[in-house]
Parts: sequence; C-alpha cells; structure tokens
Amino acid sequence: MNATPLSSTDRTRLGRLSERGLTDRASLYEVLDGGLICHLGVVVNGSPRVIPTGYGRDGDTLYIHGSTGARSLIAGRDQEICVTITHLDGLVLARSMFHHSMNYRSAIIYGTPRPVTDPDEKLAALRAVSEQLAPGQWDVVRQPTRKELAATTVLALSLEEASVKVRNAPPSDDDEDYALDVWAGVVPVHQVFGTPIPDPNLRPGIPVPPHVTDRPNPTHATP
Amino acid sequence: MNATPLSSTDRTRLGRLSERGLTDRASLYEVLDGGLICHLGVVVNGSPRVIPTGYGRDGDTLYIHGSTGARSLIAGRDQEICVTITHLDGLVLARSMFHHSMNYRSAIIYGTPRPVTDPDEKLAALRAVSEQLAPGQWDVVRQPTRKELAATTVLALSLEEASVKVRNAPPSDDDEDYALDVWAGVVPVHQVFGTPIPDPNLRPGIPVPPHVTDRPNPTHATP
Repeated sequence: MNATPLSSTDRTRLGRLSERGLTDRASLYEVLDGGLICHLGVVVNGSPRVIPTGYGRDGDTLYIHGSTGARSLIAGRDQEICVTITHLDGLVLARSMFHHSMNYRSAIIYGTPRPVTDPDEKLAALRAVSEQLAPGQWDVVRQPTRKELAATTVLALSLEEASVKVRNAPPSDDDEDYALDVWAGVVPVHQVFGTPIPDPNLRPGIPVPPHVTDRPNPTHATP
Repeated sequence: MNATPLSSTDRTRLGRLSERGLTDRASLYEVLDGGLICHLGVVVNGSPRVIPTGYGRDGDTLYIHGSTGARSLIAGRDQEICVTITHLDGLVLARSMFHHSMNYRSAIIYGTPRPVTDPDEKLAALRAVSEQLAPGQWDVVRQPTRKELAATTVLALSLEEASVKVRNAPPSDDDEDYALDVWAGVVPVHQVFGTPIPDPNLRPGIPVPPHVTDRPNPTHATP
C-alpha cells in the first residue's frame, strides 16, 4: 500500500469524524478509479453550482471536459473548483434514528484548474476521461477530429489538495439501545451494469464487443 | 402529469442542450423522490465545497441535516447553497468518441436555506430525511431524544428555483458515422440493494423486517 500522505490543508483535514479520513494516496486513486461520474462545484456570481460530469485520471492529474460553451467549465477557469466523487456502499440501519448512517467512499479535490491547450495532452486527457467511463472504447471508435477537439474544453486539476473519507462498518448504537427488539445492520447498495441495448440504428451483424460485455461491475465495499 | 412550471431564472434556464431540460414540477419530484443521496454545494471563503449527504422532501421543501458541528451546514447558513441529485442511468457508447454521452436524470436546486428551529417541523424534517433513505425505519426505531435533536442542525431549502435535466436516448452520431463497423448502444447502469447484513451485535432471533426485505430497487430509466 502506497502511503504517500495526501495534503493536509485546513479544509482537507477533516472537521468531524476524522477517524473516517484516510490519508494515503493509494486510497485516493482507488476511490477515483472506481467511479463513473463526479460532481463538479464552481462559484458563479458568488453562489455555488454543482454539476454531474465525467472525469478521468492520469497520474496525479484529474481531467474534466465539456463543450466550449458549457457555463460550468467557463466559470471554473482561473478560479477554484471542487470535484467530489462518491460511492454509496450501504445504508446503515441502527436501533435509534440518531445513529442511522451510510457506508460510502468519497474523495474531495480542491484546486484552480489549468486549461489544457497542448494538443497531445488534450488528446491524452480525453482518452483518460473516455477510459474512465467506458474502458476500451477509445481504441475502436472514430477518433476526434481537429474541429471536435477545438469544440471541447479540457481542464486539468492537480490532485495535490485532496481528502478521502470512508465509512465501512456496522451501525454503532448507544450501549443501552443494543437491548432493543429492533433489527440493525447494513443494506448494501451496488451499482451494476445491465444488458447492453443496441442502438436501434445499428447496422446488422455487429456484435456487442467483449470489452463491453466482459466489463466487471463497479467495485463496492461491504462491511 | 402535473405541469406546474419550474422556475426559469437565468441559471435554471438551461444553457446548453436545452432540449434535455424538463420544466414541470412532477419531473422534479420524481428525480428527488427516487434518489438516496444528494451533493450539497456551499461556498467557503470564496471557494466551492461539494459534499455528499442525505436529504428528504416534504411538499415543496427539501430538508438536509447534519451535526451542529458540520462545517458544510454552518457555511450554508444565510447564504446560497446548491443541491444536486443525479441518477446515472446509462453509458451511451457512440461510433465516434465525440458523441459518447451518459443517460441520466438530474435536479439542481438553488436557494438560501432556512434553519429549522420549530420542534415539530424539525421532527417532521428528520422523518422526511429518514424515509428518503430507509422508508419504514422511522416507525420501528428509537425516536430522537431532546438532546439528540439539539445536536442536529436541519436546513430547509425551498424548491422554488430548480431545474431538471434528463437524457434518455440511444447515441446520436454524425450521419456519415452510421456506416462504420462499430457497435453502438447504451449500457444501462442500475443501483440495486444487496442482501441485508445483520449487525454482528444483533440480538438473536430478530428477523430482517419486511420493509427492508421488500424494498424495491431504486427506479432507473432505459431508453
């Protein structure tokens, strides 16, 4: 297990329940690499805006992309953004309402993103975003044209300032509540892929490729 | 279908791909009621912070709660917040990299939350949050004590300013790409509940209650 510590700025040092915080880089990579979408936070006219979007990782850089017209990406330029990736792993049902909780793995990354303008990095970034969402697709589909690349904004966010938080445990009730006649435990929550649905306009005779059919479900954690 | 329009402020009027925007209140309720967690956006020292958390709905009010010490809720007082609920329904695999997409349903709500101090509303709000995550639990577990209620901050957010965005369709490729020898379609993504895992400290002889075993999986959409 790689134990390079994550940053410890005031906001990534966890305020509450700090026993749930993990501080090694390998845990950060694990949470990021297992996700499908992130929630991007930007400030627009002083107010927060939170948008779901795809992302990819290359080393210690997170990439997000969008249309050059996307307001969330324009707002993110030259100012701090926040990217959060969350895996909901379970509902924690306790004997008391107060101790109900969730099992989850989450990563929060802060930073001022850098617009990616170098053509090689832009292509590599889009590949990383593509591989995150649909591994194997990049190699079999039509590549982006110069015009398509020009219509795409890519932002690079350093993973320097990040925190990881994990809860993966049974309920934790007050001592006296363990005597109650109430069921307690964890209901796991999993994300699974369904059977691929061919495009109604698919040319006949093209089978679903193995990298799609053989893709494992997203990882999940059980206590 | 209830067709009361949602708000149409500058930021909820969709900037891009506005054909994906829905403007009726019934769609908003549907997206909210089918979710398990939201992503809460707040501004802290001028920078965005995005945090996963539970929520509940009662009529046209969204409730979120947390410890009185939770920094995200303190930051959200007397200033605007953004709450986003996202259902990822499918990966849209196109014939060209550029047209890869996701099928999803998402709701974004903006507003300045109101701290809930009235004891009756606070209890009702916590019940709404509980029912959202684990319907039926409220009626069978130990109720919150006065001390527990005092340790819990509840914020109420009006659903007045909200937008809903949905993509639920096959890939949309450029005309000339339909001739390519590339599979295209949608890989559905579902959230499912696993088999409940009893607390290792559960007293013997307490079965998993029907409201837990019989709970249907979260709704999902397929094109």
